[in-house]
Amino acid sequence: MRDVAIIGIGMMKWGELWEKSLRDIAVEAAINCIEDSGTNRVDSLTIGCMSSGVFNGQEHLASLIPDYLGKKNIPATRVESACASGGLAVRTAFLEVASGMSDYSLAIGVEKMTDISGSMATYALATAADQDYEAFHGVNFPGLYAMIARLHMERYGTTRDQLSEVAVKNHRNGALNPYAQFPQTITREIVANSVMVADPLRLFDCSPITDGAAAVLLTTVEEAKKIKKHPLVTISGIGLASDTIALCNRKDLLKFSAIELSTQVALKMAGKKISNIDFAEVHDCFTIAEIFVIEALGIVKPGQGGPATIDGLTSLEGSFPVNPSGGLKSKGHPVGATGVAQIYEAVSQLRGNSEKRQIKNAKTALTQNMGGSGGSCVVHILETK
Amino acid sequence: MRDVAIIGIGMMKWGELWEKSLRDIAVEAAINCIEDSGTNRVDSLTIGCMSSGVFNGQEHLASLIPDYLGKKNIPATRVESACASGGLAVRTAFLEVASGMSDYSLAIGVEKMTDISGSMATYALATAADQDYEAFHGVNFPGLYAMIARLHMERYGTTRDQLSEVAVKNHRNGALNPYAQFPQTITREIVANSVMVADPLRLFDCSPITDGAAAVLLTTVEEAKKIKKHPLVTISGIGLASDTIALCNRKDLLKFSAIELSTQVALKMAGKKISNIDFAEVHDCFTIAEIFVIEALGIVKPGQGGPATIDGLTSLEGSFPVNPSGGLKSKGHPVGATGVAQIYEAVSQLRGNSEKRQIKNAKTALTQNMGGSGGSCVVHILETK
Repeated sequence: MRDVAIIGIGMMKWGELWEKSLRDIAVEAAINCIEDSGTNRVDSLTIGCMSSGVFNGQEHLASLIPDYLGKKNIPATRVESACASGGLAVRTAFLEVASGMSDYSLAIGVEKMTDISGSMATYALATAADQDYEAFHGVNFPGLYAMIARLHMERYGTTRDQLSEVAVKNHRNGALNPYAQFPQTITREIVANSVMVADPLRLFDCSPITDGAAAVLLTTVEEAKKIKKHPLVTISGIGLASDTIALCNRKDLLKFSAIELSTQVALKMAGKKISNIDFAEVHDCFTIAEIFVIEALGIVKPGQGGPATIDGLTSLEGSFPVNPSGGLKSKGHPVGATGVAQIYEAVSQLRGNSEKRQIKNAKTALTQNMGGSGGSCVVHILETK
Repeated sequence: MRDVAIIGIGMMKWGELWEKSLRDIAVEAAINCIEDSGTNRVDSLTIGCMSSGVFNGQEHLASLIPDYLGKKNIPATRVESACASGGLAVRTAFLEVASGMSDYSLAIGVEKMTDISGSMATYALATAADQDYEAFHGVNFPGLYAMIARLHMERYGTTRDQLSEVAVKNHRNGALNPYAQFPQTITREIVANSVMVADPLRLFDCSPITDGAAAVLLTTVEEAKKIKKHPLVTISGIGLASDTIALCNRKDLLKFSAIELSTQVALKMAGKKISNIDFAEVHDCFTIAEIFVIEALGIVKPGQGGPATIDGLTSLEGSFPVNPSGGLKSKGHPVGATGVAQIYEAVSQLRGNSEKRQIKNAKTALTQNMGGSGGSCVVHILETK
């Protein structure tokens, strides 16, 4: 297996992009990435997108995007694993390079979610749950995560303030990110008094509906050393794992096997422990998600996610910063783009280019991107010297 | 890059499977494949499916299918490239094994198309075209292929009888295939007198709407030699290429760059010429498709696809048999499953297990699977000693 580096990263301002189409935003992020990389060479392309079929009436992005990117005829693949589609795109591009099939492989994550009504968007997102045993009966993602949150509160004593602090911390980081959809700082009171969505989750516990894209360009470490426009950033570990799609099929609602396994696989591949990681971008689709994810990653013990957040462990100045980008909560959550944007943030931090939100001496990063209620998870370990 | 072999293949009877769900058919084909392989080991899974979001309200098959297959927690990927999703799944599983990420990698192709009305199915299929410049304006796939057919008739003198003979030949082969959706033999007169769909294409020029799945299990050649339940079949070449998604963006409607390029790449990788290939499974979504595909592959010269078909070149007894399985036309076309089923047929033939439709001395096969109106194409070269 060949060693793989990331030589280019591309983002764009996320939000409700009424004036731009699916193809526009995918191409914009990709061009920003190519311009950043110092090369125009793209041998293959992987697009992560959750549900362009339902959101936009458009499948076959593996034909559409190369064409509009001016890279017609290159081999292209679209991958999907619900909200983990972006992370999966980076992993698939990694396989292209690691196997020797391509030398320069571009991964784009994209979702254009505002082309349909809010109720249709809720339907589209619910296709990440079990259609027959969950979605058809009216359970949607706020409902599924609310059940997890309720049990977490019951079992561990997790509080309203602890949930709120995840949102407060991520909006504080997002306010320093020029690409964030909601770069406003908020207070615990604002979260606690926002409209109820699915008890105990309120509006400010939920990540938003977003249009957006992000892109990263991968090549071999050998090629990257030739280009050397930026400090060398390598992908030293990747883990991918699945779990039951339906919550009702899990023995314990607070046991997230896909997160745990993918993290173990990625750390083992990189030859690291979680204590060797300097910071993480994680999948805070709801505030409760960041709390149980940092527990499943092993950053804190089970039940300690809430207290650790209140104590500032995961803040920008804490000993283990989580979601310096602002996370899904503040940066936005264009579902197929999120996993690629996590890698964007990790590389930006490792290069030392994150300006006001820069983490000091960041050398090793972990990104964690999951689908559904943890039915799939992709973890990447990135390093620089 | 590690050498890759196919050690297991699984199919099922295709048709309108009202009594089975998406997950049922995917699992049925996968179990048949695992039983065929001589091992129960599956390290990773790739699912090819075009539009389970629109057809079934169900994305996230990378979580759903491992769970229902009894392989919960394994790494899984869903890929999509419209009607080439199946071929793309096999290529992605190939990368898993070739790169060293997995030793045993299962590829499943699946589509459950009859859960929605015929008009909604037409809408779902049109998501493989350019939504903004084609589908939204009412152009669907019979219409797009009819334009290609009309130009082929104008430029090369291709006739109604030549189109009809593609269907007649493929139904003759399909009648020998126990898995075919429409195993009935037909005549040129039946085709020529069937109802008009999009002039000049009639009902019997079109592949059907189908529910179905297929699966293949890949491992390294080294591992395959240990198991040796079947004669060794290797994947010696793979090509993947893209083209403009919209027909209107091509300089020549009869120039299929994605087919030509993917074929050249696959043949080069295998160290073969098209004249070294014994037979092919190709993407006859419409009768005109088989005619232009055998031209683009270089089996015959441009314009000779029709006459060659009438002359019997591509029949089971001809010098270059095409679609011994019955093709999409007779076997059926569950869009995400088709590319995997082509590999099933190729392996079955190379093993010498195809009974009444067995091609004599078949040692080298080519499969060609395309998306949309040729906006993407995957070609595999398979070999046995």
